[in-house]
Amino acid sequence: MKNNLILLFILFRLVSSAQEGPRQSFYIPDVEGYKVLKADLHMHTVFSDGLVWPDFRVNEAWQEGLDVIAITEHIEYRPNKADVNGDHNRAYQIAREAGHRAGIVVIPGSEITRRMPPGHFNALFITDANKLDVPDWKDAFREARRQGAFIFWNHPGWKAQQPDSALWLPEHQMLYDSGCMHGIEVANYNEWYPIVMRWALERNLTMLGNSDIHGGIYQQYAIHQGQHRPMSLLFATDKSVEAVKEALFAHRTVAMFNGHLYGTEEWLNKLFKAVVKITPCPEASDDGKITMLLENQSDLNLTLSPTSQSIALGVIYPESLPARSMVQISLRLKTDTMKALKNHTVLMSVDEWHPRPEKSQIVPILFCR
Amino acid sequence: MKNNLILLFILFRLVSSAQEGPRQSFYIPDVEGYKVLKADLHMHTVFSDGLVWPDFRVNEAWQEGLDVIAITEHIEYRPNKADVNGDHNRAYQIAREAGHRAGIVVIPGSEITRRMPPGHFNALFITDANKLDVPDWKDAFREARRQGAFIFWNHPGWKAQQPDSALWLPEHQMLYDSGCMHGIEVANYNEWYPIVMRWALERNLTMLGNSDIHGGIYQQYAIHQGQHRPMSLLFATDKSVEAVKEALFAHRTVAMFNGHLYGTEEWLNKLFKAVVKITPCPEASDDGKITMLLENQSDLNLTLSPTSQSIALGVIYPESLPARSMVQISLRLKTDTMKALKNHTVLMSVDEWHPRPEKSQIVPILFCR
Amino acid sequence: MKNNLILLFILFRLVSSAQEGPRQSFYIPDVEGYKVLKADLHMHTVFSDGLVWPDFRVNEAWQEGLDVIAITEHIEYRPNKADVNGDHNRAYQIAREAGHRAGIVVIPGSEITRRMPPGHFNALFITDANKLDVPDWKDAFREARRQGAFIFWNHPGWKAQQPDSALWLPEHQMLYDSGCMHGIEVANYNEWYPIVMRWALERNLTMLGNSDIHGGIYQQYAIHQGQHRPMSLLFATDKSVEAVKEALFAHRTVAMFNGHLYGTEEWLNKLFKAVVKITPCPEASDDGKITMLLENQSDLNLTLSPTSQSIALGVIYPESLPARSMVQISLRLKTDTMKALKNHTVLMSVDEWHPRPEKSQIVPILFCR
Amino acid sequence: MKNNLILLFILFRLVSSAQEGPRQSFYIPDVEGYKVLKADLHMHTVFSDGLVWPDFRVNEAWQEGLDVIAITEHIEYRPNKADVNGDHNRAYQIAREAGHRAGIVVIPGSEITRRMPPGHFNALFITDANKLDVPDWKDAFREARRQGAFIFWNHPGWKAQQPDSALWLPEHQMLYDSGCMHGIEVANYNEWYPIVMRWALERNLTMLGNSDIHGGIYQQYAIHQGQHRPMSLLFATDKSVEAVKEALFAHRTVAMFNGHLYGTEEWLNKLFKAVVKITPCPEASDDGKITMLLENQSDLNLTLSPTSQSIALGVIYPESLPARSMVQISLRLKTDTMKALKNHTVLMSVDEWHPRPEKSQIVPILFCR
Repeated sequence: MKNNLILLFILFRLVSSAQEGPRQSFYIPDVEGYKVLKADLHMHTVFSDGLVWPDFRVNEAWQEGLDVIAITEHIEYRPNKADVNGDHNRAYQIAREAGHRAGIVVIPGSEITRRMPPGHFNALFITDANKLDVPDWKDAFREARRQGAFIFWNHPGWKAQQPDSALWLPEHQMLYDSGCMHGIEVANYNEWYPIVMRWALERNLTMLGNSDIHGGIYQQYAIHQGQHRPMSLLFATDKSVEAVKEALFAHRTVAMFNGHLYGTEEWLNKLFKAVVKITPCPEASDDGKITMLLENQSDLNLTLSPTSQSIALGVIYPESLPARSMVQISLRLKTDTMKALKNHTVLMSVDEWHPRPEKSQIVPILFCR
Repeated sequence: MKNNLILLFILFRLVSSAQEGPRQSFYIPDVEGYKVLKADLHMHTVFSDGLVWPDFRVNEAWQEGLDVIAITEHIEYRPNKADVNGDHNRAYQIAREAGHRAGIVVIPGSEITRRMPPGHFNALFITDANKLDVPDWKDAFREARRQGAFIFWNHPGWKAQQPDSALWLPEHQMLYDSGCMHGIEVANYNEWYPIVMRWALERNLTMLGNSDIHGGIYQQYAIHQGQHRPMSLLFATDKSVEAVKEALFAHRTVAMFNGHLYGTEEWLNKLFKAVVKITPCPEASDDGKITMLLENQSDLNLTLSPTSQSIALGVIYPESLPARSMVQISLRLKTDTMKALKNHTVLMSVDEWHPRPEKSQIVPILFCR
Repeated sequence: MKNNLILLFILFRLVSSAQEGPRQSFYIPDVEGYKVLKADLHMHTVFSDGLVWPDFRVNEAWQEGLDVIAITEHIEYRPNKADVNGDHNRAYQIAREAGHRAGIVVIPGSEITRRMPPGHFNALFITDANKLDVPDWKDAFREARRQGAFIFWNHPGWKAQQPDSALWLPEHQMLYDSGCMHGIEVANYNEWYPIVMRWALERNLTMLGNSDIHGGIYQQYAIHQGQHRPMSLLFATDKSVEAVKEALFAHRTVAMFNGHLYGTEEWLNKLFKAVVKITPCPEASDDGKITMLLENQSDLNLTLSPTSQSIALGVIYPESLPARSMVQISLRLKTDTMKALKNHTVLMSVDEWHPRPEKSQIVPILFCR
Repeated sequence: MKNNLILLFILFRLVSSAQEGPRQSFYIPDVEGYKVLKADLHMHTVFSDGLVWPDFRVNEAWQEGLDVIAITEHIEYRPNKADVNGDHNRAYQIAREAGHRAGIVVIPGSEITRRMPPGHFNALFITDANKLDVPDWKDAFREARRQGAFIFWNHPGWKAQQPDSALWLPEHQMLYDSGCMHGIEVANYNEWYPIVMRWALERNLTMLGNSDIHGGIYQQYAIHQGQHRPMSLLFATDKSVEAVKEALFAHRTVAMFNGHLYGTEEWLNKLFKAVVKITPCPEASDDGKITMLLENQSDLNLTLSPTSQSIALGVIYPESLPARSMVQISLRLKTDTMKALKNHTVLMSVDEWHPRPEKSQIVPILFCR
């Protein structure tokens, strides 16, 4: 009885610590009927070479405002084995329960961790990670595919494996051709890889950004100041394992890294329409100028920069448009302005959004009264 | 022609600098049909002893997310007179135009600046500030009242005027009795005055918080980090001069200072209902416990602390609930819990909200499934 | 060979992640020849009910700028036992090695975790934690004392164990009388206990502040924004296990919680002299006023408030004096000022420093030319 | 008498508001015997088209930690003329007095504001700004030169004047050849100009970064979060008008913009040696690896990135090294490492420092035991 009471009190502190902190808002409006799920699909715990318990990963995700995580332990590398028991499915089992309590979707997965080629790959939605623990890496991929996995290449630009530059080797072509590579990390931890984004665009691979975190997210990234880990935005029909899987196989993702987004022109365009609300600002408009109010309805920070068209029109200043803020943008009405302003549309550039590695997304701002 | 072009280019930079930065969100949901206007009704410019141009005050208000300001120059003290021209209405005229462009409501007003007693008072909604420039302070108050002003006592606890403690002197009683004192600053600049809040509650004076800023708001307060100047929250039928006036005379205000709110129990209660959305969290609930999700829908930071009732029920931890975040709050279900939980309502305390100087607001959290 | 290479590459990432982030400055100058060690002497890992690996605790300490930690697992409560092996000394062994690499002093210790009375206690500097795993709590304390432990009472105001108010019970008197209680936590996690500080002052117990962290320090506290966990400042002859022990037994500590310091008047006074450098500011002084420059040389944030003496002298404004900043403080020279200014010393109050629970530390500012 | 007292009390608030806030640390160690002065040499007040009083500019500089400012009103453009009196020297006179009180060096100067070509130029150290108010721009430059001015071209890449791209026109060559152009802004307000840096390197022009602020520094830049306005770092023999002049004519400057530094390889190299202290870390070193401790002693944020040499050596991770922090950098000792490690020197790149527009500064890290 005495012991039970002790346990009860301590237990309370532990359980309460499961979601001990507040979940901060990380709001992105729905995009054409799809929910925008915030996902990190690559991370580690003490069950391989990470430094935290699986619950901790769920807590971090809850607090940062994520919706989906996958804990992807190394099959081949478990340095804590002497101290930590459990097979290759154990980390997932623990995380799944914590995820249920917190409303975080936890995807089963594992990291196939091989020397280059082919390097490291994550297999998600697998049904038994233990079966991936085989000597030949080709067998591991075959088994993952057999289990219906979504498979992606991790940190292809990691210099520890490809010191000189990221190379798409015959082994990668083989995996791609045989249906064993569906996605690729264009960003991982503290790096992003322009060349990998080009591969993804050329080969229609799903673009992902993931943290590959081993330590603590809040140590590595200044989350309390509004920064975020690398992550993948998924356009999904709902918040479920199945919908995540469908969105990944359908390439409906945008990779996010260090405040920048990397995705196709199509999806960045749809996202902009959902995120920025544009309305006339009659009070600030007059005979000589027309002023629009742009409201960033999301928790993403944006910078709107001029294009050569907008400079010619006299709308020349870059405009910071942080999360949940609004700006006034004015256009002086001159004769030549009216001519240049085709369809009343000013083109601006979103500095942080990239449909190609070296480009920023161009977005139309409709000026009307 | 040459000169015109020069002017045009320079002018553009100036005009564009009018609202050059983004307006950050400072969202508070409507409260029982009233809009919650964020107002600062006490500030200075170079037209008395402030250090900025009137436009600057509008810019600060725009960027910080305020809705209403009053520039209240000292009638009796104008140290920059040799360099700056203009009568007592000039600052308002300039600010009003800038306010129009930015959508900020600018209230006409002036500060009657006399030695103690009676000290300093602001008169708002006056029609001609020049008429307040008279030798006898009583005449100044009479004139303000004649113009239909809303009059409030500024920084009654300012130690430069009342070094030992704030005193309600016969002159103040006289002003109050004669309809020349409708409100009072419970907070000003970097101070708040518990005794003044008591006076306000006893005498039904409108409670105000104002910045009395002479320098720069963004230097004094870390606005970019989510802090705010002292201000007054007004519950108004719409965003207009008339609605502001009606709300002030009707005492529908809450003073805000350093993240804390000071107001009547009634209005703090209504505000809580509007700000915090409470829903069941079925996933995290089980046979042994019931979990509720509390979502702070506003940009106000809250801390929920336990009360003796909630401690007895086993809900004992203070919970930070920052702007736009959510928390899970769990209750273990024990036999005695069910008895103690009258009407399924747990009482918690909002640390930052004060219906009386020495108390925190108690709010009910309904637990249901 | 293949496997070795794989291991090498992965290993690198792990090892590098040991101190992967930068160590931020948390500077406090030496105080009368003593180093000021920043210590957290109460924390948990997966080896009891914490959520992180021991290395993680060392990393957090390295990054936050701490010097000393103790990992104090519950002897009586190990919910992860099925997954995590190792006896009661294992967490310390792992942390000690990580501490060696990072230059963090790791103190051996354990938490004796019993129902109230006597509640939870930490025993530091023990030589074998396993011997504390005995049925009777009195035997556990005897064994700790036998091993030469420094023993302190944890979170005496924890409401889960003493819901109504913190009580000093006969069992605590017995422990105190028998040399089994040398210190006490005046602050723990997210609470501080005024009554406990009174006990400490009356009974000459070493005052401590500790995090008792189970999850992640950087999630719980906004370290990147300059906040800190609760901790204990130790005035020690050097940075070593022995010097920590000597300082603790000699009561040379100040507890730090939420930016506030709790300690004896003597040590707070010495600390102020070391932290704030005061020099004349001849440029800003003139015939009518004398101006001093106060420089906060530390990473502690201070607020200097007026006292009745300084108000009478005309130095009336609270002055924020953040980490590594300086302020000018001016005194107008009037006849009565010169009389009141005994020995040219103005008394101010450091709002965040407390020699007693309800008081702020009064410090002398010498005004000279 | 009555009035005097009123004045006294109000005056106190104003005077105290002169340096009302704390001066935050912006520490950069001396570089080879030179003090590193933080200067902003381009700004405006209500005396031309700015929005603040001259004292306000001094306050901002004091609080942000700057040492030197120049208020450079437009000679040709004064939109507030109807409200604000005073000749072209008035703003300087007011600022100089405020600067004296605060210990900020205020440089006399004015902005020659002409259409392109030649555009806008600042003339510093002039003795009478009124004499620059002449119809022909060439006469204005001649007069400035006659007064011994240091003259620099402002925002050469400003798109309002050169929409397509920044051009070095014959008029600029003429000014350069005739000793009327000594420096150039490589950064201004919210822009920096790669092409201008190339011009500066080719023509040995003094490189400058300035804010050109019209509104409020603390609104535009998140100073409280450690950001800074664009500024010029001057390597000067002391903190005086004369030393500033000598340093500017001698080209001993580095331009700072958005956390990045632009200067010559020589001065960036010297600066690195002063800023980063490198010592062996014996505790973390062992037979297999050697670890160095790098301490950033300044308030500048740095990022150390790998070079191809450091990648080959196995030191591959970018390392954030924020203000006043330290990092461990380890090198594994392998046979081929020892060969590659010429003179024990690892080359790293400082991401934020640029000896040429498209390059980062390469710095040597000496590894020793």
